[in-house]
Parts: sequence; C-alpha cells; structure tokens
Amino acid sequence: MTFDLVISGGTVATAADVVRADVGIVGGRVVAIAERLRGGTRTVDAGGRLVLPGGIDAHCHLDQPQAPGLASKGAAMADGFRSGSISAAFGGTTTIVPFCVQHRGGSVTAAVADYHRRAEGEAVIDYAFHLIVSDPTPAVLGQELPALIRRGHASLKVYMTYEALHLSDRQILDVLATAREERAIVLVHAENHEVLTWLAERLEASGRTAPKEHAASRPLPVEREATHRAVTLAEVVGVPLVVVHISGGEPLEEVRRARARGLTVIAETCPQYLMLTAADLDLPDMEGAKAMCSPPPRDTAAQAALWRGIEDGTVDIVNSDHAPYRFDAGGKLRGGPGTSFRGIANGLPGLETRLPILFSEGVVKGRIDLQRFVALTATNNAKFYGLHPRKGTIAVGADADVAIWDPEKRVTIRNADLHHAVDYTPFEGLEIQGWPETVLSRGEVVVEAGALKAQPGRGRFLEQRTSSAYRPQGGASSWT
Amino acid sequence: MTFDLVISGGTVATAADVVRADVGIVGGRVVAIAERLRGGTRTVDAGGRLVLPGGIDAHCHLDQPQAPGLASKGAAMADGFRSGSISAAFGGTTTIVPFCVQHRGGSVTAAVADYHRRAEGEAVIDYAFHLIVSDPTPAVLGQELPALIRRGHASLKVYMTYEALHLSDRQILDVLATAREERAIVLVHAENHEVLTWLAERLEASGRTAPKEHAASRPLPVEREATHRAVTLAEVVGVPLVVVHISGGEPLEEVRRARARGLTVIAETCPQYLMLTAADLDLPDMEGAKAMCSPPPRDTAAQAALWRGIEDGTVDIVNSDHAPYRFDAGGKLRGGPGTSFRGIANGLPGLETRLPILFSEGVVKGRIDLQRFVALTATNNAKFYGLHPRKGTIAVGADADVAIWDPEKRVTIRNADLHHAVDYTPFEGLEIQGWPETVLSRGEVVVEAGALKAQPGRGRFLEQRTSSAYRPQGGASSWT
Amino acid sequence: MTFDLVISGGTVATAADVVRADVGIVGGRVVAIAERLRGGTRTVDAGGRLVLPGGIDAHCHLDQPQAPGLASKGAAMADGFRSGSISAAFGGTTTIVPFCVQHRGGSVTAAVADYHRRAEGEAVIDYAFHLIVSDPTPAVLGQELPALIRRGHASLKVYMTYEALHLSDRQILDVLATAREERAIVLVHAENHEVLTWLAERLEASGRTAPKEHAASRPLPVEREATHRAVTLAEVVGVPLVVVHISGGEPLEEVRRARARGLTVIAETCPQYLMLTAADLDLPDMEGAKAMCSPPPRDTAAQAALWRGIEDGTVDIVNSDHAPYRFDAGGKLRGGPGTSFRGIANGLPGLETRLPILFSEGVVKGRIDLQRFVALTATNNAKFYGLHPRKGTIAVGADADVAIWDPEKRVTIRNADLHHAVDYTPFEGLEIQGWPETVLSRGEVVVEAGALKAQPGRGRFLEQRTSSAYRPQGGASSWT
Amino acid sequence: MTFDLVISGGTVATAADVVRADVGIVGGRVVAIAERLRGGTRTVDAGGRLVLPGGIDAHCHLDQPQAPGLASKGAAMADGFRSGSISAAFGGTTTIVPFCVQHRGGSVTAAVADYHRRAEGEAVIDYAFHLIVSDPTPAVLGQELPALIRRGHASLKVYMTYEALHLSDRQILDVLATAREERAIVLVHAENHEVLTWLAERLEASGRTAPKEHAASRPLPVEREATHRAVTLAEVVGVPLVVVHISGGEPLEEVRRARARGLTVIAETCPQYLMLTAADLDLPDMEGAKAMCSPPPRDTAAQAALWRGIEDGTVDIVNSDHAPYRFDAGGKLRGGPGTSFRGIANGLPGLETRLPILFSEGVVKGRIDLQRFVALTATNNAKFYGLHPRKGTIAVGADADVAIWDPEKRVTIRNADLHHAVDYTPFEGLEIQGWPETVLSRGEVVVEAGALKAQPGRGRFLEQRTSSAYRPQGGASSWT
Repeated sequence: MTFDLVISGGTVATAADVVRADVGIVGGRVVAIAERLRGGTRTVDAGGRLVLPGGIDAHCHLDQPQAPGLASKGAAMADGFRSGSISAAFGGTTTIVPFCVQHRGGSVTAAVADYHRRAEGEAVIDYAFHLIVSDPTPAVLGQELPALIRRGHASLKVYMTYEALHLSDRQILDVLATAREERAIVLVHAENHEVLTWLAERLEASGRTAPKEHAASRPLPVEREATHRAVTLAEVVGVPLVVVHISGGEPLEEVRRARARGLTVIAETCPQYLMLTAADLDLPDMEGAKAMCSPPPRDTAAQAALWRGIEDGTVDIVNSDHAPYRFDAGGKLRGGPGTSFRGIANGLPGLETRLPILFSEGVVKGRIDLQRFVALTATNNAKFYGLHPRKGTIAVGADADVAIWDPEKRVTIRNADLHHAVDYTPFEGLEIQGWPETVLSRGEVVVEAGALKAQPGRGRFLEQRTSSAYRPQGGASSWT
Repeated sequence: MTFDLVISGGTVATAADVVRADVGIVGGRVVAIAERLRGGTRTVDAGGRLVLPGGIDAHCHLDQPQAPGLASKGAAMADGFRSGSISAAFGGTTTIVPFCVQHRGGSVTAAVADYHRRAEGEAVIDYAFHLIVSDPTPAVLGQELPALIRRGHASLKVYMTYEALHLSDRQILDVLATAREERAIVLVHAENHEVLTWLAERLEASGRTAPKEHAASRPLPVEREATHRAVTLAEVVGVPLVVVHISGGEPLEEVRRARARGLTVIAETCPQYLMLTAADLDLPDMEGAKAMCSPPPRDTAAQAALWRGIEDGTVDIVNSDHAPYRFDAGGKLRGGPGTSFRGIANGLPGLETRLPILFSEGVVKGRIDLQRFVALTATNNAKFYGLHPRKGTIAVGADADVAIWDPEKRVTIRNADLHHAVDYTPFEGLEIQGWPETVLSRGEVVVEAGALKAQPGRGRFLEQRTSSAYRPQGGASSWT
Repeated sequence: MTFDLVISGGTVATAADVVRADVGIVGGRVVAIAERLRGGTRTVDAGGRLVLPGGIDAHCHLDQPQAPGLASKGAAMADGFRSGSISAAFGGTTTIVPFCVQHRGGSVTAAVADYHRRAEGEAVIDYAFHLIVSDPTPAVLGQELPALIRRGHASLKVYMTYEALHLSDRQILDVLATAREERAIVLVHAENHEVLTWLAERLEASGRTAPKEHAASRPLPVEREATHRAVTLAEVVGVPLVVVHISGGEPLEEVRRARARGLTVIAETCPQYLMLTAADLDLPDMEGAKAMCSPPPRDTAAQAALWRGIEDGTVDIVNSDHAPYRFDAGGKLRGGPGTSFRGIANGLPGLETRLPILFSEGVVKGRIDLQRFVALTATNNAKFYGLHPRKGTIAVGADADVAIWDPEKRVTIRNADLHHAVDYTPFEGLEIQGWPETVLSRGEVVVEAGALKAQPGRGRFLEQRTSSAYRPQGGASSWT
Repeated sequence: MTFDLVISGGTVATAADVVRADVGIVGGRVVAIAERLRGGTRTVDAGGRLVLPGGIDAHCHLDQPQAPGLASKGAAMADGFRSGSISAAFGGTTTIVPFCVQHRGGSVTAAVADYHRRAEGEAVIDYAFHLIVSDPTPAVLGQELPALIRRGHASLKVYMTYEALHLSDRQILDVLATAREERAIVLVHAENHEVLTWLAERLEASGRTAPKEHAASRPLPVEREATHRAVTLAEVVGVPLVVVHISGGEPLEEVRRARARGLTVIAETCPQYLMLTAADLDLPDMEGAKAMCSPPPRDTAAQAALWRGIEDGTVDIVNSDHAPYRFDAGGKLRGGPGTSFRGIANGLPGLETRLPILFSEGVVKGRIDLQRFVALTATNNAKFYGLHPRKGTIAVGADADVAIWDPEKRVTIRNADLHHAVDYTPFEGLEIQGWPETVLSRGEVVVEAGALKAQPGRGRFLEQRTSSAYRPQGGASSWT
C-alpha cells in the first residue's frame, strides 16, 4: 500500500488508548494504524514523540464584529482567522470553532454569510462556527436556525450577560426548544446580568473602578445562580446543555446535581481558571486588565475544585475562550489609563498556550493521563459539537489532524514567541514542559521546526452533525 | 390584684413550654401567669382546654385591589377586612398581615393610605400590612419605603411572577438593598415568570386548557430555580429573606443549602401543600379550579418532604395564603365554564381552616408537639415580622390574644360552617380533631360558643419593628 | 398571695420569650410570673439583670470510676459531685447530668447504686444520670435497662471508641432496640475506634508522640464516618439519636442529611470546638495537653461551620463535656513530661465557663438571641433528656432554677477564680462579657455575690421521663 | 504484509471511536487497523457487524473453594474455569478475573498456587486473579502480598461482610496501606456485616425466613453506610478504591461525594441491579432464591438511579458478579425446600448474559453509545486492573481479543441456550437485541456460529500491572 505520508515510530494516543504505532495517511485521512508501515511518499519520524490528535478549540473568538453596547465596544479583535488559526496551529490545535455573532435586529443567515467571508482565504486549519443568537425572532427560530442547523451550523450559543447579547429566560427557552427540535447543541455563558450590572454600578458609584473590581462585581454566586438557572431551562425543555468557562466549585456542583437528576450537562473550563486568581487582576499600572475575563479568575480553592472536576470526570472539555484584545491603547485600555473596569474589554488570549499548559500541568504533573488529555482537548469537543469521528481522534477514516509532541521540551512562555496578534499573554513567564513540534492538518504539515508551512486559506469549513449529547430517548417535559 | 379577666384552669402553651396555669389580663394585656389567680372581674373557665396564643396569619389577601394584567383580573376578592378577620378569628387567629399592594405607576404611600381606609372600621382583630412593591422607582426606594418602614411597615413583598407584579432581578436587588439599609424583612414569591409563561403558552396553544394544566405549566423546577435565584439575590446583598408557600422538597433543599452557606432564609409552607396534590386540580366540571393556587399542589412525595421540613425545623412558619376568590361566575370562573386555566384566578381560601388542619394533622397525629405548633403558627410569625413580643405568645406584657381550644372536638370541615365570603373550601369534608372555641383579642372575647362577640372596627393597626431575622453582624458583600 | 421569694424587676427569658416580669416562688417552684408581684418573704432585686433558666449541663463527667484500659487510666477525676456541682452553679448551671458508667462485666444496676452513693450528700444542685453502657449483655438489655429506664434513667450513652467502653455496631443496635422499646434516648460518641487506633499506632511508631499528634490521629473523616454510621444504626432501628460533641462541618453535614431523610438526630457541640483549634495542642512544655479532648479541636473553618449550625438550628444543644483531669503529675501528665499523646487523659474542664463563653460569643456578639441561648443551654437539654417542664425553663410549675445575669459584666477567665478542682482552664485569659451573679436552685439561693450559699447534699436526683425526641409515629424499620 | 487473520468489513469500536476498518492480526496481536487489509491467511467477514473488544468480566466467581462459615457453605460452585470461561466466551467476554480466596489461617501464596492449578488446562480465554484477603497477618501484609503484587496479582479484594471473609476496619486499613505501598488496587464488598446479621437474626427469630426476607435484612442504608465507611478508610490511607456491585442511588451518592472531595473511587454495578428488583425475591416455590444476591436487587427507583450513574459517568464498570450456585438440591436449596434465606447461597449466574443485556438495554435503547459500552465492559476494567493496553481495546499491539456482534439479532434468553453449569438464569425469558456471534482470543476463534472452537487450557494467566487509578501525586494522609 502506498501512503502520502507515514508518521513512524511514535506513541499514538486516543481518548481510549496509547500505543506504539505508525500512522498511514492517504488523501488527508488516516487509512492505517499499524505496527510498522512502509510505502510512505513522505515519512515523518516521530521516534520518542507523542502523536496526538490535533486539538480542537471549541471556544475562541476571532474577527468577531462587535455589537453596539458591548463592554468591549470599540476594542477590535486583534486576531482574525489568519493569525488566529496560525497561532492555534503552533499550539497543536488543528480545528477551531469561533463564534459567528448575530447582532440584534440582524439576520443570522446574513451573519453566517459574512463570517464565511471573513474566514475565506485566511485559515490554515479547519473550522466550524458556533452561532451566537442574540435576537431569536420568530423568523430566526422558525426558519433561519432550522435551515442553518441542517446546513451544519449545529451549535448555538446564548449569553445570560453582556448588554448587547444577553437573552431573557424565555428567549433562551425558545432557542432551546428549537435546538431540541433540530437536535442542535446549545452553549451558555452563565452569569446573572442584572446582578453583576447592579454590583458594577454600585462599585463604580463608590469610586471603585480598578481592574480588580471586575472580580468584585461578579462574585461566584453570580455564576452559580446563572448556572442553576440555565440548567433548569434545559431541564424544562428536555435538552442537553453545555456550560462554558466554569470558574470554580460552586457552579461545578450545580452541574453535578443536575447530572444526578438525570440531565445531560456538559462542563467546560479554561486554562485561565486553573492558573490565575483574582489577585492577578490587582497589579499596578493597569496590568491587572490583562487577566480580566468573564467570569473572572477566582482563588486557589476554585482552582483545586476545578482540578478535582477534571480528574473525576465532571469537567468534560477545556477550551481557551481566546478573546484577542490588545493591551495597548487601541485595545483593552482604549479608554485611557484610568478607565474603569467596566470600560475594559473582557477576555484574554490563549489559543496557542491552551494545550501546552494543560499538558504540563495535567499530564506531566500526573493529574491526568494522556487519554484524558486527548479527550478533554480534542475528542470530547469533536463529539459534543458534531465533528466526530472526522475530527478529534487518530482513527481510520478520520482526518489526519495530528500534533507531534516533544513531551520533554521545556518552555518558558513568552509572548514574543507566540503567533497571535495580541501584545501580551497572561501566562508570561510560566515555565512548562512539553510542546507540539510538528502539526498536520488533513495530512499536510502546517507547522514544523517552528515554522509555518501552510498557506492561509487552506483551512476548510466543517459541517457539524448532531451532537453526541443527544441520546435517543430525549428528555421528558410537561409541555410536550 | 384585680384582673379584667382571668382564664382559669387551662393548659397554657408557648413556643417553649406547656404549663397548667391561669392567665390574668388587665387592660388587654397579660399581666400575670400563675398557678391560681383570683380577682378576675370576669373569668373564663378553660378546664380541660388548651390556652394557646392566637394565631398570626402572616400570609393572606383581603380586599386587595387588583392590578391590571393580573391573571385574576376581574375576580374581586370576596373577603375584606370584615369577613376576613371574622373568619380568621373563628379559626383561632387573632392577628392578620394582609398585603397592601402598590400598583405600577402608583405610590406606595398612597396605597398604604388607601389600605388603611379599607381596613378602618372593619377588622375584629389586629392587623399589620406587608407592602407589595411592584414598582421600585428611586422615589419609592429612597423616600417612600424608608419612611414607611420607620412608620411600622417593616415587611416588603416582591413577586418573581404575575404579569402585573413581578420584579426583575435588579429591582429585587434594589428592594433588598433598601431593606438592608432600613432593616426591613423581604418576602418573596419564587416562581420563574418567564418559564411558566412560556410553558403556559405552549400548553394553551396545543389546546391543553383544563385546570390541571395549571400544574403542568409550573413544574417543581420552576419554583426551585426561582428559590435558588432569590436566595442568591439575598446572598449578594447580605440580607435575610422569607421564601413563602414552599410546595415541595426541591425548593426546601435550596433553603437548606443556603443556610449551610450561612444565610438567613426563612421558609413558609401552607396547609394546601400538606393536604392537596395536583390530582385535586383534575376534577370534573371545573371543580379542579378550586384547588388552583401558585405554586400548585404537587404530590404525596412533596407532602412528605414538607412534613419532614416541619419536623426537622427547616420550615419556620405555616400560613394560609388565603386568596378569597369565589368559585361561582363572578370569581374563579368569571371567564365561563370552559375558560382556560390561565384565565382562572389563582389562590384559595384558608384563613379559618389553617390552624385546625395543622393542629389535627400535626399535633393530634403526633408529628409535632404543641410548642412547635405555636411556634409555626404564631410566635415565629411574630418574631420574623416584628410583632413580637406584643403578639405571638402568651407572656407577661404581651397582648392578651388567646385562643382556647377543645383538643378533642371532632369536626368535619364544611364551607357552610365557615365565616368567609368564599363559596367553597378546598378542604370540604375533611375530618379533623381540635377546634378553637373561645377567642380573645387584647383581652376581649371575640368568638365564643360559635358566636361573634366583637364589633367590626375594634381591630387595630400594628406597627412592625425590626425582624428577628436580622442579626447584628449582618451579611458581608462584595459591594459594600 | 404570699411568696417565699420574689425575683423582681428583671428581664425574664425563656426559649420563646423575653419579658419584663417578676417571678414568684413558693415551695421551690415558680408559681407566678407577673408584671409586679408583692408579698415575697424575700425579694431579690433583678433590676437591670437578665433572669434566665439555670443552665443544664447534660454532658459532664464527675467522679467517674475509670475502667481498666481507658486511655486516661490512672488519671482520677479531680471533680466529684461536690466541687463539680459548685463549679457548675457558679457558672449559672443548676442541673447536671453526669455519666454513670457500667464497666465491662459489671452490672448497670450496681453501677447506678454506686453512683447514687457518690452523689449523695455532695451536690448543691439537682442531677440526673446518663448511663454509659459498655457491656450490653442479655441481662442488661432485657432486665436491667428496662427497669432502670422505668425508674428514671432514661438516657443511655454508647461509645464508638475508647478501649474500655466502645461497643460494636451490633451491640449499639441492641442498645438502640432496647431504647426504642422503652423509649429511652441514646447519646453516641462518634469516632471510629479502629481507624484512630491504627493512625495513633502508626504515628507513635514513627516517633510522633507530642500532644499535637492527638489531632493527627483523629482527623475529621474519623468523626464524619462514625457519625454517618451511628445515624445509620439509628435509621435501621427507627429511633432518635443524640450525636454529642460535634467538632466541625463534615459531621454536621451528616446530621443535616439524616434529617432530610426524615430521621430525628440531635446535634451537640461544646465551647472548646467553638473557641480552640488544633494549634492549641501544639504549645511548648506539654501545654498542648491542656487542650486535648476527643474529638480534638479542629480549625477556624470548623468553628465557622459550627457557628452556622448554631445559627441555622442544626446544633440543638451546647454542653461542656467537662472532664476534670488535672494537668499536674497525678493527672494528664501522670505518665511523665515526655509521655506520648496516647497516654494523656482525654478531656478538659468547662462546667463553669460554658454558659459565660456562649453568652459572650453568642449573645453579646449578636450571633444568637437570648431565647436561642436559653434553648441551647437549658430548654432543649431538658426536653431531650426528659426533664422538661420541671427543668430548663422559667414557667409556672417549673422548679425555680434561675440564674440572674449581669449582661454587662466584663470578666477575664482565670482558673484561679473558678471553683472546680482542676488546676487549669483551657480558656485562661479569655475576655468575655456577661456573668451569672445570683443562682437559685428550687428557689434557694445557691450562689450570691461570689459566695456559695448552699450546703452540699441539697441537690436531688431527678427522674427522667420520655425524651421529646420521640414522636408518636415512631420510625419504621424492615425488621419489625 | 501478511496477517494470520484479517477481520474485514466491520465497524470497529473502542472506548473512544467507532470506525469502519479492517483489523489485521499476527501472532495473536492486532498489528494493523486500516481501511482495507489484504493478505490474511484467514479472513473473517464482519460486514454489517460490530467488531468490539472482547469483554472483560472483572467480577466473577469460579471454582472458588468455600470457606467454613460462609452462608453458602456446602454449595459448591457449579462452574470452574472450563465451563465458566466457555460461558463467558459465548457471551462475548474474552478475559475473566475471578477471585482467588485466602481462607483464614491460610497462606495467600498457597491459595494462589492452588488456584493456578484449578485454572490450568481449563480456561478457553485468558484470566487474571483478584486476591481475596481474609486474614491479613503480618506475614501476609509484609511478605506475601508484596511478593504476589510484584508477580502480577495487583488487585486485592476485601469484604465487609460474610462470616468467613469479612475484615475489621483496621484490617482493611492494613490491606489498603500495603496496597498503597505496592500500588495495588483494592476492591471492596460494602455491606455492614453486623447490621445485616442483626437484622437477619431478628427476622429469622420472628419466623420471617422466606427468600424475600433476604432483602429486608440488607436494606439500602446497610450498603450506603459501608460504602461511606470504605471510602473513608481509603481517604485516611490515601489510596484509590473500587466499590463493587453498587445497587442503588444512595451508595452511588456516596461515591459522588467522595469524588467531589478529591478521592479516586471507582464504581461498579451489575446487570441484576439494572434488571431485577426485590419483587423477584418474592416468588412461589422458593423461586425467589434464584434472584438472591448481595446486596439484593432493590426497586425501580434504584434501577433508574443506576442508569443515571451509567449515563453521567459515575458508574465506571459493569461486571457480572457471576456466582454459579445451582438452584437444585445440591445448590441454593441444599438446605431443603423450606430453608431459611440465611441458609441459601448468595449470588446468581451472569457471565454469559452480561454483555448482551447491557448492549440491548443500554446501546439499543439509546441510553449509552457504543464507545461507552466498550468502556464500561472492557476498557475501564483493563485500565483499573492493570491489563491495559494488552486487553480491553482493539488497538495496535493489543491482544486480538475480539467479539464480532450482530447488532440486530433478537434473542430470548433461555438457560437451555447458555453454556454455564448452572441450572437457571435469573433473566429467563428476557427479550433482547444484539449478540456476539464470533469471538476471538489472541487471534484465535473461540466461538463461531454457536459452536466452541477452542480447547480448554488455551487460556493464559495474565500478570496485572499498576492500576490506572493511581495518579502520581497520590493522596496525602495525616499518618505519613
């Protein structure tokens, strides 16, 4: 048999197994996994290396047009599909799922068309879109979403906060009901908008405007409450739900309780909640703004609770929530050096560092094994977002999206070494072990020896299928 | 010593003790409790009888002007202060705390003045007002409420549902913050308005309009969610909270969890949740409408959970939630015989039957002792609503509000025997044991031998003081 | 009316009410509570003072003959009924319930007879006995205990640890079944004996013998496990249970969970768990031995959890667990200065300081109100242990056991000022506010102006009646 | 490349992926998985079939010498390694891990030698041994177990009940400490021996001896308590733990709580707890004895709770707990037809039906997907018991243990069709869908077209390696 490419001599991991095997690729897909494969037109030597499924980053923001009224209004996103996908690839990620946003009053279909244009010719790796629904009109619910879902846009995101995005409970119910009907999966940003706004206004009114007040305005109960509520909405409709960027033990406990009631709730966290705390918001010269994201980083107890959740299976996926706002004048601090925390854009970059940090802190430190690492960063995302088995694994028939890791490599994270367009990383100076050296997308080498080998535009759009979160028997409800 | 009245030979109970003693009354107040008192101008023989503090019904609706848009719009309340207070007295209750409602756009102060007029000359027992806040404007929050609270209107109620009454989360935060500032106590009706409306519309749209669909439109998660949210709002503000009419185990569990976090949350249930189930909503000829209240009665598991809550101290108070809508054409069924459940007024009568039912099901059946009965029905209400020690107990210095019970009397509840102006009771035919025979208010006999002995208008308005739910150290919050 | 004594002008508190009233006493009993009483042969002026029910200390050890094999073997108890009861009285306590211990192989009846002899002629206040059952033979279960319970020894204690005392699970079941049959109440010391012994042996084997290792050998899970197990045993038998000296949040959580399942579980804690931590075990010169008790003091998180339990009603009673071992050579350190923690007697003194500490930390600091203080320290003990209404309250017909407190008095606790025979107090130097000045037992002044006014021997034995923890419907079980 | 065997055209599943692929086998191991493989010396056509890893049954009893005093004393096990392994293979299982039992007073090493002899020449599939430790003497703990663990006996089982087997808490601590030292994994049968014995004796004494009383003697709290205790013992030692045959929601909740505290606890259930209830114990003519196992089947609520645990990841493994006692005179009913439930052997057969039942009820009914089925029945067992990656998956390098399933086949379970030596199945008459048609062990066809193709004795002993439950950072403890 002849292969376009053979990855030879490596240790191949999936969410289930870790084996010594060669991987044979034809036409961009894995066609053989075997002890020894000959006949590769090209061979990549993976001796002493880990051959992992390329990561899927199913929570990242790229070139997202800002809606009026958003806290980060005016702060343009520094990364589009080009720099974003390149940065992702350098960090071992081979699929990204950024957000296509519907603005209020706008058409989702039009937003999707626009977002396709933004992606076109730019990405070096494959991508799908989550659809942010900010205005679920009857037309959106009854026509646009069903049509889009059937065309492969099968994940919808709803916000419970952000001025320009948040939906009311009944709007969320409407979206969930449409999702149930069409078997789409819904992601929710769970923070109680009214409570955090009320707190922020009180803080601001009393002159407390420093970046650290961001955390004071969004204490853990704000997130716990919204998580409980979101889960209840899904419970009423009888539909699975993804709760994104969980930041501590209390919301995680809500997930556990929901599951014990029989609900399908998927839990995501991000490296910033494992590595940062609210203390990082309290640095001089507005440096704290670099760690500002929503929900905010908490404390070491929250970090420990999240690690327990990762270890015991409560946390299903770890994504970056990459939000590429620069720290300089045009970005987070566009409002000037003394700007209130409410005027600073929320979010921080992380596409490139997500996998290395979790590998180092999780696998190298012995908290999780390699299979769980693969599951958390690739396979589960693929399953929940309808990309499996094409993406998220190394298996016969799957796209040959592969990251070849040097598990021994020691790296000190420096923004200067990263490939995004953001002028900082919140993890500056962090010392880690393990880094992806060679990255393949559909069998093509995208990154090798620290250099980009791919042309922007080679990345393709991926149609999503039904999420694995749907079980046939569905959920019962009093209204159906 | 000379007494205006001596209650002699009875068994006197408080929330702490049950003793054989005489009670001496002067000027409407208890001035002596002793083994044997002589010198009464008048003596009431209580031999073989229980001498209990008159009940306080801190959750009842009387002559409440309906706001436009309320589901029960058009259904006038059959009971005002006259029939309501008479009915209460016949059931052993000597203090009522009905609701003075602010309509949207209206002044609370004006509503209070109006409600005083409605009460004037009518009541045969004393009363205070809870203030329903439906429009917390800056003027209401900053001026009206502080002034009213200082004048003895120290309990505020907020609704999370009902079209004309419900507040948003931030409005509730505003009310809670004012309450914290002025040390008023807040009651909350906890059901998620948007969820239940959404469900009701779906049910109605699919032709499911019978009374039993009322329960389908408000499943337990609707109440659990709102309870969790209300508790979180109080947690954020750092203030105690009363959750009224809890109907089952899940919301009760939220109360337990909140307390374990250190919050002061007071839990109320009502006889209908202990005695009825959703099956009572499913009777022919629209009879199910008689059991319609919000939240709806649940099932026997919910009843058992509530009894456990009563036994283990989770439930603090039992009130009636008396809502005097007649069943006939002008009342619940004003919309006609085939009216949808959404057009039927919510609520059912219970002022007169509350104490006898709880006595029979609780004390006689051995679930609770007499002290707990007194605490649940009188003392705790008095404490939480700032009426203690004047009301809610039999103690030196307290008003001589006393109900003398025959603990052996067997009664079959018949609406024909009740004194409210409602044309039915949901407890028709229930056989119970124990009934208050003689009822005194401020030392005056109000009910005796089945006859009313008091003149309407003798009842007085009571100024509330700070709730016992406030502990000096208060709650901390990130915003203060 | 003529009274032997009138307490005039004070503020009288019960578990329910706080009123301004005089208290009239005849023949050792309260016969009248009234606004103003004349005709006292003697009058005690209580103006500006609190008139509280004398405390009941239902967990104290006095003159308890040591069983062979007990860790504290050889350490004689410094306090018998004389110094113990005097010390209690000086601290505002008027009833004590120490433990009559059955030794293995011995008769409970004989132990009771012996313990009566030890008490006779000694106590200045009234007393009952809990019976420690260490050898539940068929004769003990079938004859001795039923006869003793019917004669007023209606509370039994079982140990899950201590070499000479601990029972196996099936022995505990036997005791619980007898208790159920005779409606006696069972107290349990809940620590897993095998686990703590195993840990202690490992620690000792590795040379870790300092007092602080006592805490290391009994970590919180040791207590949580035994609590869960004890509760399960009571659940299986269908009988109420008292869990004594709970030291932290995890065992308290087991109590909450048990109650939510419908069980009657009574929770006790002690001042040492509210005021000390494991750090107090780690002092130079073996001083840490002074804070050694079982379970050990934990940490500030445990203290906070216990206060939450006191505030939210989970904790029912606060007793001292007074265990009068001296610190000097004959007592705790009889094994010499370098003795291992396993050779040091467990327990610390606290009869006299219990009420003042809880008053100061609880009432003065605003965590609990006066009624709750009375309930925690007197009324609930009286009810659960079958002494109510004779003891534990100020009510007509009750024994006139009264402590008149100066709520403003500031005291620094010094062992030199205490009246027990122990040579230290673990609370040395603690500054508190509030102290009982005058103490009456059955209408007789026992303590006044810092002086003892009563003769040893005036205290009487109290027969216990059925605990209020029994509700008529009892518990169901698979075996009956 | 030349293969000994190629499985062609099937759908291959692992715990991570489901792919259309051929599987190439050389020397008994999988050497290639590829889209299309040629060159097989032999080819098995798997078109339209599922190619699954052969099941691992890590909880079964075969030819286990009975210890004196066991309830099932005298009831010989009908299945040894021969019929047991054949029956397993017919049900799609290719690895069994039965129990080698140490009797009290006996040597574990000798028991292992004996058990090897019993296995020799008998098994048609591979096997490992769990070691039941019933007498953890210093020699056993200090020498025998360390040596045996290093020789591949790396899983130990302890019993908390059964007269002849149960260990005390401190014995369990000893075993856990040795396991921690040597990184062996411990399984626990969690029922409180004293409680269930006490209940059984009471039941028997009152004449309640029918099979259904077996359930009455072991109510759910008996299992919940022991689960909580076992978890605490592991918590104290700082070691992972497997809780076997969980029968309902309450013990499962203990597992969830333990995990949330950070412990590694693995949960097993069995088909009988998903399919039977206590009602199955209550059949005429002693038929109920057929469903007798310990813990007993519960009720439909317990079944639902277990399914939720399977769906939400709380349950990690499903095994059979095959205990091959015949129903006829020599077996369960050797005591005669009227024998008390205490004299009936505990346990029921299930080696052959385990996988088909879970496939039908789980996969076909849509509760779980194929990957989860594989994980529950094969991969997780392999990982937790140190057999992975050699067993439990279809991956390059793994043993070619494969079951080829017809997912459409409809089967009515009849004992007449099964291959064990037991004369009944508790699942008689159950209609299911899906059955393994062809079964391979190390590349050899063992079962094909309903016929056995392998010789007894071809099965080999497997050395276990360290369980994946061990994470590098281990657990902390107060004693180390």
